[in-house]
Amino acid sequence: MSEPVRLASIGLGRWARVLARGAQRGSVIELASCFSRSEEKRAAFQEEFAIGRSASSLDELLADPEIEGVLVTTPNDSHKPVILECLAAGKAVYTDKPIAHTMEDAGDIARAAAQVGVVFAVGHSARRLGGNRVMKQWIEDGRLGQVSLAEANFSNERGLELTTDTWRFFADKSPGGAMIQLGVHHADNLQYLLGPVAAVSAHARKLYTAAEVPDAIMAILEFESGPLGYIGTGWASPGVYQIRLQGTEANLMYDLDFTTWDESHLVDKKSTLVSQAYRQSTRPPVEIPDTDMFREQLDEFALAIRGEAEVEVGALEGIRSLAVVHAALESSRRNGEAVALAPMVEMAGSLA
Amino acid sequence: MSEPVRLASIGLGRWARVLARGAQRGSVIELASCFSRSEEKRAAFQEEFAIGRSASSLDELLADPEIEGVLVTTPNDSHKPVILECLAAGKAVYTDKPIAHTMEDAGDIARAAAQVGVVFAVGHSARRLGGNRVMKQWIEDGRLGQVSLAEANFSNERGLELTTDTWRFFADKSPGGAMIQLGVHHADNLQYLLGPVAAVSAHARKLYTAAEVPDAIMAILEFESGPLGYIGTGWASPGVYQIRLQGTEANLMYDLDFTTWDESHLVDKKSTLVSQAYRQSTRPPVEIPDTDMFREQLDEFALAIRGEAEVEVGALEGIRSLAVVHAALESSRRNGEAVALAPMVEMAGSLA
Repeated sequence: MSEPVRLASIGLGRWARVLARGAQRGSVIELASCFSRSEEKRAAFQEEFAIGRSASSLDELLADPEIEGVLVTTPNDSHKPVILECLAAGKAVYTDKPIAHTMEDAGDIARAAAQVGVVFAVGHSARRLGGNRVMKQWIEDGRLGQVSLAEANFSNERGLELTTDTWRFFADKSPGGAMIQLGVHHADNLQYLLGPVAAVSAHARKLYTAAEVPDAIMAILEFESGPLGYIGTGWASPGVYQIRLQGTEANLMYDLDFTTWDESHLVDKKSTLVSQAYRQSTRPPVEIPDTDMFREQLDEFALAIRGEAEVEVGALEGIRSLAVVHAALESSRRNGEAVALAPMVEMAGSLA
Repeated sequence: MSEPVRLASIGLGRWARVLARGAQRGSVIELASCFSRSEEKRAAFQEEFAIGRSASSLDELLADPEIEGVLVTTPNDSHKPVILECLAAGKAVYTDKPIAHTMEDAGDIARAAAQVGVVFAVGHSARRLGGNRVMKQWIEDGRLGQVSLAEANFSNERGLELTTDTWRFFADKSPGGAMIQLGVHHADNLQYLLGPVAAVSAHARKLYTAAEVPDAIMAILEFESGPLGYIGTGWASPGVYQIRLQGTEANLMYDLDFTTWDESHLVDKKSTLVSQAYRQSTRPPVEIPDTDMFREQLDEFALAIRGEAEVEVGALEGIRSLAVVHAALESSRRNGEAVALAPMVEMAGSLA
């Protein structure tokens, strides 16, 4: 490829910087512009990433004919208005996960993206972690046999530290708390590994956080393909990121230290993956290939704009993951009764 | 204590031998007699454990005035008739877990034991594993802070190997499959650690076993004290025995290799327990004291007969653990809706 793909960052907080570093580890993308309402943030971001220009309004950014696509990292509840404007201007859109904070917004975003017909990607990058890629391989080549149980946990202490200064404190902006911020990763990971979830039974508790949102959620996932899955997610304990698969031929257990999550080219080096064969109790390590989830996902997005790649995680995958979150919250309100995903996914606009 | 406590084994299968070895590692118990309908088994058992005599009928065994208590390891669905006879003869009873296969039988057993007033113990020995004792200590002395999530898994490949030759194959004799044989251990462990369960939401699946019973069960436990718990249990994968507690001050993760389970003085040596402090990602090991769950529990039972100890796991604890199993099965039939434990425990005769 001769010319780099010119992208612009929108919403210049911590996550925009993580993605910018990821993009700049590759050679496909040129970060050509950026926008935040704060002039100070724009200037700092421009300088840190050596970006040629910035825009003082979203309109100005979107009027820039050189910009081929945008990276949206604004708060979850502003995804819809920002993304709809970007799509209306014909820009390809990469949005941080979750696709939106509500199923309604997710549906509006998905329909708009389909109508405009540009490239649309959701940042469920965790499925690209080396351990997840290996687990998927073991499922596909039969080394795991038939999977019956899949367990995942993603937790940290964030809920104990939330204040009203952050949008994550509020139920209307971040419904589900730990489940929409952390658990949603495993909602994508497990569906990546085992296919679509049919229904979710869950209980959510607000135990120790001062915020309005739950800090302890457990969900059982019934997969269309037969196995049962579990997502545990909390915001009131030291950090955990684990996935365990139990198959008729082997188990796999993945344990990730996410202190280097932001520098995604390092995170695989701090992970462990072990296998356990039928009738064995020992758990020898499985080699994890080096990956770089943020760089890879952004490169794929950029190449897709040029027609040289396909986006792996688009609107449908984003909707399916968000649906697990909202099905879990609805199930919790219904005392654990299973909530089917298909109607939610369809209502949000079941588009491939 | 001058005189050893004279006990007799009833049902002389693999488990009777495990318990006999446990009893003989201590010095409190004399195995004085034994009974099985099979003369061959009786002779072999007598010889292996150097037991002075055996009985050719249960009546004969129970008429033996020297026998102070019995160790019942017959199939789950025969606990009630065997135990009721033993109690009627005034013998103290230790029964292997679960207390019975149905709540009705459990209630009849509990009421009979209370009426007769002899010592009655249920073999939920796993709570005595060194790792469980340490976790309990950390909860009690505040080192874990407030617990929000507790996850446990007990699985093995048994379901793939069951044939109609074993009672565990049949739903009427072993309802719940992996949940009543393996998961019930964690039903006791987690209630030991966090107090009584208020309600259970679960899904059970019969996926890969030829038997009539489920080989994949996931259950969410709502504890009266606030936290959420999870039990995953399967019969279609390599063996797993794990407990993880997530607290506001620390996490604890317990992983046990149960290949030495039967020799319970060795099992702690094959276990690992790690802690993780607030804001830390490292998981330093926590020392596990040497324990011997079967010896300790049998010694306690024997000493209780002499009035020199209290039984830690009696009818109520046995009923509470079995109630988690049956609440899970009922919840699965109700599409995951939470099933409250209190009515089940009360119906079975809520006796302290």
